[in-house]
Amino acid sequence: MNKIEHIGIAVKSLDDSNKLFAKLFGETHYKIEEVASEGVNTSFFKVGENKIELLEGTNDESPITKFIAKKGEGIHHIAFDVNDIKAEIKRLKKEGFKVLNETPKKGADNKLVAFLHPKSSNGVLIELCQEIKK
Amino acid sequence: MNKIEHIGIAVKSLDDSNKLFAKLFGETHYKIEEVASEGVNTSFFKVGENKIELLEGTNDESPITKFIAKKGEGIHHIAFDVNDIKAEIKRLKKEGFKVLNETPKKGADNKLVAFLHPKSSNGVLIELCQEIKK
Repeated sequence: MNKIEHIGIAVKSLDDSNKLFAKLFGETHYKIEEVASEGVNTSFFKVGENKIELLEGTNDESPITKFIAKKGEGIHHIAFDVNDIKAEIKRLKKEGFKVLNETPKKGADNKLVAFLHPKSSNGVLIELCQEIKK
Repeated sequence: MNKIEHIGIAVKSLDDSNKLFAKLFGETHYKIEEVASEGVNTSFFKVGENKIELLEGTNDESPITKFIAKKGEGIHHIAFDVNDIKAEIKRLKKEGFKVLNETPKKGADNKLVAFLHPKSSNGVLIELCQEIKK
């Protein structure tokens, strides 16, 4: 794993939180992107080489809407940048981690992504992501 | 803010979680440090320029013991590296963030640290940290 690619934070209102995090970082988000398949609107902030992704649910079935209903706003997941997501999935399965989607799927920000179940990783929802080459 | 310095993860057993995260990252922690004033044992992993800090409470009054009792194991805080922690505290107070300790205190890993209250930052406990120059 190369670095923390981003930290995902579940928020109720992307508009309100974009303003709040702009105050925190002293600069505004650099993009907004909807991932309709996941039922989320996202915005991204840069912090050095890392990113913060804010996530707002767009419907009641969205994992983010459900997360907030259960736990309130807060940190939702950590994403690690990997070179070869398929090899990492294979390696981590062997190590005993539970992979939520064994076939990587298209996520926000031009990435192939896969998630590890929090139950197999100390309550932490972990995302692996690999940049899609153009 | 220069980068994500580390992500803090609350764990029940540092021994067990050191083994788990070594499997995740494919390498072991590079140090263990007790911060007696906070009632925690910590271990650190490197992921590129970033770090993961595992935190185990050492007594019932430890914020980590209390966190786990309330929410279970999982992500506890995000720490951002800053050049001038006193200036950042001043700036963030002006922006409306609630600073938990206005005088920076000595944290793990040779840092001066200060925390922002999660209520003022979307449920996220944020740590500012500045390297102590030797």
